[in-house]
Amino acid sequence: MTLPLDGITVVEVSSFVAAPLCGVTLAQLGAEVIRVDPIGGAADYRRWPLADSGTSIYWTGLNKGKRSAAIDLRSPAGQELVQRLIVEGDGIVVTNAAGWDWLSHDRLTELRSDVIHVQMLGRADGSTGVDYTVNAAVGFPFVTGPATFAAPINHVLPAWDVCCGLYAALGVTASVLRRDSTGDGARISLALEDVALAIGGHLGFLTEPQVTGALRPRLGNAIYGQYGHDFTSSDGASFMVVALTRRHFRDLVEVTGIASAVSALSEPLGADFSDEGDRYRYRDVLSGLFATWFNEHTAAEITEALSATTVLFERYRTFAETAADDRVVANPLFTRLDQPGVGEYFAPGMPASFDGVHPATGPAPALGEDTAVVLAERLGLSSDDIARLTDAGTIAEGRGEPRS
Amino acid sequence: MTLPLDGITVVEVSSFVAAPLCGVTLAQLGAEVIRVDPIGGAADYRRWPLADSGTSIYWTGLNKGKRSAAIDLRSPAGQELVQRLIVEGDGIVVTNAAGWDWLSHDRLTELRSDVIHVQMLGRADGSTGVDYTVNAAVGFPFVTGPATFAAPINHVLPAWDVCCGLYAALGVTASVLRRDSTGDGARISLALEDVALAIGGHLGFLTEPQVTGALRPRLGNAIYGQYGHDFTSSDGASFMVVALTRRHFRDLVEVTGIASAVSALSEPLGADFSDEGDRYRYRDVLSGLFATWFNEHTAAEITEALSATTVLFERYRTFAETAADDRVVANPLFTRLDQPGVGEYFAPGMPASFDGVHPATGPAPALGEDTAVVLAERLGLSSDDIARLTDAGTIAEGRGEPRS
Repeated sequence: MTLPLDGITVVEVSSFVAAPLCGVTLAQLGAEVIRVDPIGGAADYRRWPLADSGTSIYWTGLNKGKRSAAIDLRSPAGQELVQRLIVEGDGIVVTNAAGWDWLSHDRLTELRSDVIHVQMLGRADGSTGVDYTVNAAVGFPFVTGPATFAAPINHVLPAWDVCCGLYAALGVTASVLRRDSTGDGARISLALEDVALAIGGHLGFLTEPQVTGALRPRLGNAIYGQYGHDFTSSDGASFMVVALTRRHFRDLVEVTGIASAVSALSEPLGADFSDEGDRYRYRDVLSGLFATWFNEHTAAEITEALSATTVLFERYRTFAETAADDRVVANPLFTRLDQPGVGEYFAPGMPASFDGVHPATGPAPALGEDTAVVLAERLGLSSDDIARLTDAGTIAEGRGEPRS
Repeated sequence: MTLPLDGITVVEVSSFVAAPLCGVTLAQLGAEVIRVDPIGGAADYRRWPLADSGTSIYWTGLNKGKRSAAIDLRSPAGQELVQRLIVEGDGIVVTNAAGWDWLSHDRLTELRSDVIHVQMLGRADGSTGVDYTVNAAVGFPFVTGPATFAAPINHVLPAWDVCCGLYAALGVTASVLRRDSTGDGARISLALEDVALAIGGHLGFLTEPQVTGALRPRLGNAIYGQYGHDFTSSDGASFMVVALTRRHFRDLVEVTGIASAVSALSEPLGADFSDEGDRYRYRDVLSGLFATWFNEHTAAEITEALSATTVLFERYRTFAETAADDRVVANPLFTRLDQPGVGEYFAPGMPASFDGVHPATGPAPALGEDTAVVLAERLGLSSDDIARLTDAGTIAEGRGEPRS
């Protein structure tokens, strides 16, 4: 199968989550992604979680299928090599490194007019920001968690980093499409904070206070404006249960045996439980009625009973339970990958399947593993050139250990 | 400026978050997106939050800049109209409607061989799943929130829906690029659960238990493997504070005046605080030392002092505070939008700026507002045809009220 980005080379000068995730996404769509790192590695090279060997599970996870070149980014000679990799390649670079004139759009377009340049930032004004600080500033931590809790609760998924990486991959792909048609390059700027604000706006979280003045309440595990709640089984398992439609709700009422109680409440409360708004307003009394059934049945009984209905539900799992579950080990999204320093594990490909296939990539490279081959293939450097650059400390194969 | 998807038409048969977000994203990249709804609206048409008029802030937020056609999707005549909009347009359709043979890839490729078809699903096997249930099954709720808490805590941002929408937009764009080059269409399948599993895998959450057996602990607002914590000021404001690098940490230690205390602890604990791992291991004692300074300074004093350092920090804000802040009202990402039924508000464009501009769109259409004009322009239907279809109940202008 021809992948959408087959034949396209992207240079990534990156660290942490967003830019590397952009790169792994483009790699899984077929691009050749060359991650350029300073000799010894960028600030994310040893980031937790670590395997027992000390190799970063995190770094290897976000750099699957890339090539790695280790280059002294402080030296003019090293900077020139990176510029050449970009402009003599396909003129595409993705970076979260800020403030480097030699890697800027302006500088690179002097060397090649149709460069596609994606600059990731913390905030649009160039000031710093990371997922945890951006998230604090937008509003989600004050509506996450138990209704009785007053302090902010952070998310653990770095959701803004992830979205930022996906927007960047979309920006690159869309710009290649435009360049194919118009010949124009692109100067793309993408701030992590703007990603969070845009999503918060698109979903209405930032619109609601502007137009109604309403302050979204903290709802625990309930769903705003819909019926959803978590329940505990007699053997201590937790379930998330959602009824979006009338049919879902009717099925939930029936399976839990509370139809007559719900019906009896309808008139005195003036509630129309066929309306999602009323299901939400009276969520606590409904949850109280449902809870008894959940508390008096085992996880297995609950699973069996709800599976026979349209009710949306899922048992809460730990990462370890999920990783051992068929949804990972028997899922064609995952392939066994032998990652040096980490071991063999189930690694995800692209969640979108194309023509039935989830495009996947091989393991992450060792840091600097491809320095020589990339410079030879891409820039035509001879082995003498490479030896000279290595001796000068401009490039390194591997992490920069002395050549043996 | 030529936008990347200028001149491309996408048909969206959608509801809820992921597919509509895909559409608004493509629209902001220049595509003409025709959202097709059943007469009267899909299941998301009245979803909360609502404006005082009853108009859904949510629906209008996710359908900005689209055209709306209301068509009876249960009638063969209506189904044929939608098929024609797809195949006589650019052959691109995005849908989360499942189980409709007439809208399937197989059926549409009989009518046009190079169709690009994005089918969103809850789970890859076709079974249902929504963000709240998928999230429960992956593992995040058991590591979110206070360390002393045992029950799962859901996220409030529907992160998987959002990522799914962005992957879908990327899938469409990448497939257009491939079709331009090879002539081939694409059959893209994208399950919400696979999105969550892929991200959980890429970031190492699902890898760690496979290769080390470690169970990620619940950390409250701390950051795994890094130093980060939340603090409260003397006047009750909450701050998220992050020190990723040695420089960040040194600055934080200095500004809070605990350098000698940190130094005194280093030897008895055998801790090297220049190492991120040790900063993480001893996070609680470090936070205890930092907390006194935060507790004894006002929010204004903290902001002023930390702003003079490299320390990453942000004050926690509510959605209402954020929406009124300069980061929204003075941010070129946002434009004033007059949304009928909702009012005037700051609406976000595309978080990525292209050549300095955040592509934006106008307001969402009223349901069915463009039915007649879309059918006339796209399929060449005459006003007689449209009157006949309206009388037959096959199409509607607006929500399906009788024609006046």
